[in-house]
Amino acid sequence: MEILSEDRCFGGVQGVYRHDSETVGVPMTFAVYMPPQAAQGPVPVLWYLSGLTCTHENAMIKAGAQGWAAERGLALVFPDTSPRGEGVADDAAYDLGQGAGFYVDATQAPWAPQFRMYSYVTCELQALVTREFAVESGRQGITGHSMGGHGALTLAMRHPDLYRSLSAFAPICLPSGSDWGRKQLGAYLGPDEDAWRAHDATMLMRDRGWPRDLLIDQGTEDQFLDLLKPEALAAAIATRRQPATFRMQAGCNHSYWFVASFMRDHMNWHADRL
Amino acid sequence: MEILSEDRCFGGVQGVYRHDSETVGVPMTFAVYMPPQAAQGPVPVLWYLSGLTCTHENAMIKAGAQGWAAERGLALVFPDTSPRGEGVADDAAYDLGQGAGFYVDATQAPWAPQFRMYSYVTCELQALVTREFAVESGRQGITGHSMGGHGALTLAMRHPDLYRSLSAFAPICLPSGSDWGRKQLGAYLGPDEDAWRAHDATMLMRDRGWPRDLLIDQGTEDQFLDLLKPEALAAAIATRRQPATFRMQAGCNHSYWFVASFMRDHMNWHADRL
Repeated sequence: MEILSEDRCFGGVQGVYRHDSETVGVPMTFAVYMPPQAAQGPVPVLWYLSGLTCTHENAMIKAGAQGWAAERGLALVFPDTSPRGEGVADDAAYDLGQGAGFYVDATQAPWAPQFRMYSYVTCELQALVTREFAVESGRQGITGHSMGGHGALTLAMRHPDLYRSLSAFAPICLPSGSDWGRKQLGAYLGPDEDAWRAHDATMLMRDRGWPRDLLIDQGTEDQFLDLLKPEALAAAIATRRQPATFRMQAGCNHSYWFVASFMRDHMNWHADRL
Repeated sequence: MEILSEDRCFGGVQGVYRHDSETVGVPMTFAVYMPPQAAQGPVPVLWYLSGLTCTHENAMIKAGAQGWAAERGLALVFPDTSPRGEGVADDAAYDLGQGAGFYVDATQAPWAPQFRMYSYVTCELQALVTREFAVESGRQGITGHSMGGHGALTLAMRHPDLYRSLSAFAPICLPSGSDWGRKQLGAYLGPDEDAWRAHDATMLMRDRGWPRDLLIDQGTEDQFLDLLKPEALAAAIATRRQPATFRMQAGCNHSYWFVASFMRDHMNWHADRL
């Protein structure tokens, strides 16, 4: 693991690191924020999964999470959203290929060998972070924005023993019924829609649910509401009698101005539960 | 004044605007954050001046200021650091010309007609902001980072009736005795160093001081300490018996990770005094 940068921030350290990933077959960059409390011993850790076109950097710089994490003694991990580089498959569209891994393990050509962000996040990076940083592997939560909210919801519902707390900002709620999903799940997983079901938050909510409570924030003025389909997940939550707080936030759009506005609430949500 | 964007943020609005500036002769972009309290009436306003190479955008995105401003009901203004564009004079160096206005009115060719950031910030943009936004012209403070810290200190000491509160992050403290200053003041104001004195924070502290207290934060691991020369300003403050809080912050460097770490303190400093 190579250190690309480490900067003092709110009494802790914001670092950016690179490692050769066996799972995706290329070097991967990720960011970790360690709060000042980590100097006294291992701390709980929150995973933040980012959206389409993002790298590890967007949320690290624009979400204003470090101050609240320092206040509550939470470590933060910001993975990239796909493998990258010249030898990596890609597509001209912004929402397929590099920057758009959708947190699945692809089974279809040309994506299958490298687009394995599901295993990368839940296994390889998981193991690396818990080995290299002073974090408690039994106290991990997950959140994310947009495609990363989809990732947080689907990874958590599939691994409720690994992730103990869950929230999301403006998640893609029904990828199997949206242009933000059908194209990508079809490309990565093939045309059999049964294979998509384990990567669709609304379907997972219908099929399995989540054993604890969860928090979702969604802006009422989000320019992508038709693609995110919060109504599908909200209905599934209500139908299941799933403990949850689902907030439609007046006037907010899909930007990081919205994410930053409610970051404190999400940090406190996770810290209270970890 | 043209609206480039407006986003809901912490219950207020983060906007980016453009106007044709008479002072510098080209269109100028700036950002304003209006807190939720502005819906009830005019609020105090804090000016944030940015450093070398920055636009209005760096601090707006990376400093995490909006949340604290919303908590205290402060409006924020983020001006650009120079005129820009094809018809504007420039230099190949990052620290002269576009992105490096140094908050002076140039008297020398080729800079004189357009590099007038001193008058732009203290007069033209001042008038525009107090006319177009719900801010109180009698309750204004100023802060900034690096070259912008130099700007905040020098503009405030020259206009203590306009700016009622003052702070700075890692300011250039002695431009007349630093490579971050001698080249620029020489280029913009000419070789007569007497003309530089009114744009040098340490000289102004010796000559005039500031009628209230001020706050300065400086990282002990700042990679530009030799250029910033905090020891010169610290000595001038102590020699003058100037009320001030001058903090050397352990482990911090020159980055926005440092600025963000202490933004809450600076917001509270200004809100308490405005």
